[in-house]
Parts: sequence; structure tokens; C-alpha cells
Amino acid sequence: MQPTGTGALHIGNLEGALRNWVRLQYDYEMFCCVVDWHALTTMFDRTEEIGPAARQTAADYIAGGLDPQRCAIFLQSHVPQHAELHLLLSMVTPVGWLERVPTYKEKRESLKLNDEQVSYGLLGYPVLQTADILLYRAHAVPVGKDQAAHLEISREIARRFNRLYGEVFPEPAAVIDAATAVIPGLDGRKMSKSYDNAIFLSDSADVVAAKVNSAFTTETKLRKTDPGIPETCVVCQLRKVYDPEGYQTSWEEDRRGERGCMQSKRELTEILNEALEPIRRRRTELLADPAQLEAILKLGAQKASDAASETMKAVRTAMKMY
Amino acid sequence: MQPTGTGALHIGNLEGALRNWVRLQYDYEMFCCVVDWHALTTMFDRTEEIGPAARQTAADYIAGGLDPQRCAIFLQSHVPQHAELHLLLSMVTPVGWLERVPTYKEKRESLKLNDEQVSYGLLGYPVLQTADILLYRAHAVPVGKDQAAHLEISREIARRFNRLYGEVFPEPAAVIDAATAVIPGLDGRKMSKSYDNAIFLSDSADVVAAKVNSAFTTETKLRKTDPGIPETCVVCQLRKVYDPEGYQTSWEEDRRGERGCMQSKRELTEILNEALEPIRRRRTELLADPAQLEAILKLGAQKASDAASETMKAVRTAMKMY
Repeated sequence: MQPTGTGALHIGNLEGALRNWVRLQYDYEMFCCVVDWHALTTMFDRTEEIGPAARQTAADYIAGGLDPQRCAIFLQSHVPQHAELHLLLSMVTPVGWLERVPTYKEKRESLKLNDEQVSYGLLGYPVLQTADILLYRAHAVPVGKDQAAHLEISREIARRFNRLYGEVFPEPAAVIDAATAVIPGLDGRKMSKSYDNAIFLSDSADVVAAKVNSAFTTETKLRKTDPGIPETCVVCQLRKVYDPEGYQTSWEEDRRGERGCMQSKRELTEILNEALEPIRRRRTELLADPAQLEAILKLGAQKASDAASETMKAVRTAMKMY
Repeated sequence: MQPTGTGALHIGNLEGALRNWVRLQYDYEMFCCVVDWHALTTMFDRTEEIGPAARQTAADYIAGGLDPQRCAIFLQSHVPQHAELHLLLSMVTPVGWLERVPTYKEKRESLKLNDEQVSYGLLGYPVLQTADILLYRAHAVPVGKDQAAHLEISREIARRFNRLYGEVFPEPAAVIDAATAVIPGLDGRKMSKSYDNAIFLSDSADVVAAKVNSAFTTETKLRKTDPGIPETCVVCQLRKVYDPEGYQTSWEEDRRGERGCMQSKRELTEILNEALEPIRRRRTELLADPAQLEAILKLGAQKASDAASETMKAVRTAMKMY
């Protein structure tokens, strides 16, 4: 995950990705990398924000349930082999493949960047991402659907490397967990930091209450007795995720005009805060004790570095570089 | 210097570059890097040649007079910080700067490469070259005139980095030594491996004799008594370089039709072989004792790595990456 802004995750990240990783850590040898070098592609002119944001992200990983003893939690920049493999892969990746990546074209267009403003590193984003994956000879990568193109190029680069130098890398497969929930933002759009519609793991109980209060419900439900449409109501949707056993009763009441949105919001606030409180407490503890967090990141970097060194040895042997 | 083909230097490299470096080592703290990663831009499909070629190049450095105790002689791939700085610089280098580099356009055109064939790494060649320079916070770089554009982009990247993060890098200045000689190839064109007109430091005395015998002289001098034009005669030009004290007498005789080309070739062969014999002996010794050569490269990599680590510490501090 790339640290951006404050670095704190929102509940969209939590339910859409992190929960899945927490489940996966029991079945896989897992490498969870906070990609602070990737953040440079867009934050190169405010790098002072990257270090703190990366720590927030790491704290959220752990607070959300990743176990630093079980998987490797680390910063990309603490394992310089990412840069070395990136350089080697850059020599076998045609520039045309990169120019065609949809997210590159979108970023260029949305930011209205020309060739003088787009950095070489932004063009090469997928090469670095591929190095992140191949450095651990990963068989599987848990990804969101919007990252499918990036993983496809990683598979192509792995194939090309293997064809040139012999089988070093497995072709990484995408793991899209069906159990992950898509969390709507407070305004009904996709929850996203950039839409200002997110509930963060760093939000206090009061902030969560205020945000839930501002959430969109059923547009046509003006009075308590008007019928609601839970399928399009943000509050009902969030309740479904955070109260999977009990949400149906509240949905039926909503549909029949037997409860007001204020009641639904009060109840959701309580449910959400109960679910988020242990995460909030743990992340606050971690961030209050930088030495502990750095020790965790150091342990993670050590594990990652051991695996990375093995891979780089295999890479150099295959390429006959010595 | 990038290792290509067999990796052996020719006397054009010796007189045009290496002799200059040998002089500079007494006045500068010098880092002499054999850039084996750069070789990947064109040799990615025959990487098995790069390692041996790099050793040949290093042996020629030393045989030609570079003192491994005095300067750092090492392979780029042995100092992975080159890759790390390359990655960081890639984030502040606009892709448009790279697309405009004349040698990139020339390489694309001469090899008839399209976007599917040009690698991301070939486009980024100047970024890696800049990392090679800035990693040692070099003040001066001895370059050939055809590398002036590459050094200009290195200066631009250094300026941009310093403007964004504070003064870390001196702007590297080009050092073009007026004393270096331009050596004509045996056919009168520039001496170049790819023109097959070169005398290599690896050539035996007999091969040198045969090559000198095949060298172009004055086109209109068919008999001994025909007047020669030393300014356009390859043999006379080489004699000027290798017999700076005594060449004038032979030139006058040539001009007056008092000596034949065969005599000039015999004398040049003797002069050349006398000059090259100690270099030839030393390089043969070095290549016959791989352990000694590896020890020299290890020492060089250690010196380079120490300096590189200091620079990377300064870079991370300036960028506030931790």
C-alpha cells in the first residue's frame, strides 16, 4: 500500500483489503510492504510527509490485525534490493508497455501533465511495482480490481525475464477475495481520501459520530415514516458490513418507515465505534511509542531483506552477472 | 567506461581517455567505474559476455597505469547504491528531458527500434549515468566531447535535486584534457571497435605488426620516391603520438619521398610494440590471476561503497526519507 496524505487508512481500505490480508497471513508467507518510494511519484515535492505517513500506514496494518511475528511488515526504502531489481527489470521492459498502462494515461490526463512534468519514475511505476512482487518470488498478490492491469504487466515482465535468463520468477497470480466488502463513502460515491468522504481509523469516536451524522441516506425519506431504500442508503450499507448478524431487522424497519434516519445513525455510530475502538487504541499505542514501531519495521525489513538477498543471488546467477 | 564485446580497450581508448585518467589520479580522488549495468541496455540478451568483458576492461585500466591503491577501480554492479540513487533520481527527472537526448534518438534510429523494442532502461540511460556521477558527489568528470549532452543532463538533474531538497550535489563539470590524442583507425576513420579498424591492448606483437601493415598511408604515394602527406597518413599520425620526440625527421623524409611506407610501417610497429609491451604483459598477468583481479575489484568496491553510503545518508537526510 502506498502511503499518501496523512497515511492513515480509512474503513474502505480496512474492509476492502486489510481484513483480507489478515485472513491470508495464516495460510501464506506474507510480505506487507509500505511502498514509500512509490509515493515519490506524486509526492516528490513534499517528501517530508512520506516518512510519517508510512508509519501511520504500518501502524494501521498492525492495529487492523496483521501480526508482525507472522508476516513481514516493512518499508520499501528499508530494503534497497527493490531498487536493484527495479533497475535490472528496466532493461527488459519495453517502454511501449509502460506508455500503454491505463493508470499512467489516466494520471497524465487527470493531472494535465506533459512530458516536461511527467517524471521518468512515474512512467516506470509498474516496473517498480513488479520488482516489489518478484523480489519475493511471490506466487499470489491480493489486489483490487483496478490493479489488474498492473499485475498483468508484472506477469509479462516475469515471463520475459524467465525466457531470457531461465526460470527464476513464478508468474504472480491475482488473489481477489470475494469476501471483501466494498465500502461506500459518506456521500455514496466510492470511499476515497481524495473525495473527502472517508472515515479514518485515526478518527476519534466523536469524529466518527459527526461523520455518520453527515452521511447520505435515502433521498426521498424526509420523515421517520417515509419508507427507506436500504440498498442506496449509506448508513444501511455500512450497517450491513459492521452488523452482519443483526442488520436485517433494521433494514426491514427502514423499508417500512418504522425508524428514522437519526436512530439508524445513532445505532451505526455505536456499532462502528465498538468495532473501531480496539484498532484505534492499538494504533494510538503504536504511534505513541516510536521505538516499538521502528523495532517492528526493522524486524520486517530484516525478514524481507533475507528473502530479497536470496532472490537477487538467483537473479545474478541466472543473468551470469558477477 | 562501458564494457562491450570482448571488453579489451584499443589504443584510441588508451590515448583518448585512459592516459588522461592516469594523469588525473595524482591530483584527484578518483572513482573509475566499469559500468556493467549500463551494458545491459544493449547486451541484455547476451549477459554472459558482460562479466568477462568487465574484467578485461578493469585489467586494461590497471595495465594502462591506473593504480588501484590510488583510485577506486570497481564494477558498478558491486555497489548497489548506484541502483538506489538511480531510482530516486528517476522521480525528479522529466521523461521529456530523456526523450530529447541526442544519443537516445541516434540509438533508436540506427538500430531501427520502436517503442516495443526500446527498453525503459535504454530511455533512462542518462539517469543511471547521472547516478554514477552524483553518487560520489563528483566535482569533475573526464569526458569525451560526444558525452557533453549526457553531462549537461546530469548537471540539470543535480540542480533540480538541489532545488527540491537542498544542496547535496556539486554540479559536475566536464574535464576535457587538451593533451589527449585523437587516434585514427587503421582505415583513417575514427578508431572504433565497431569499424573493425582498431589496435587492441590485447593484440599480440604479431597482430600489431599485421594491423600496421594493413594501415592506410598516403593514397598517391605508390613508390618509395613519391612524396607522402603525413597529415593524412595513418602511419605518420600514429608515429606522431607514439614518437613525439623523433617523428619529425620521419615526416620530413616522407614528405620528400626519401622513405617508403614499408619502412615507416616497420618502424611504427617497433615503436608501438615497445610502448604496448609493458601494458600487454601486465594485463596478461592480471587476467591469468583472477583471484588477484577480484581482490583489486573488491578493494575498489569497498572504497566506492564507503563514499556511496555517505552520499546516500546525505540524500535521505535531505529528502527526509527515513
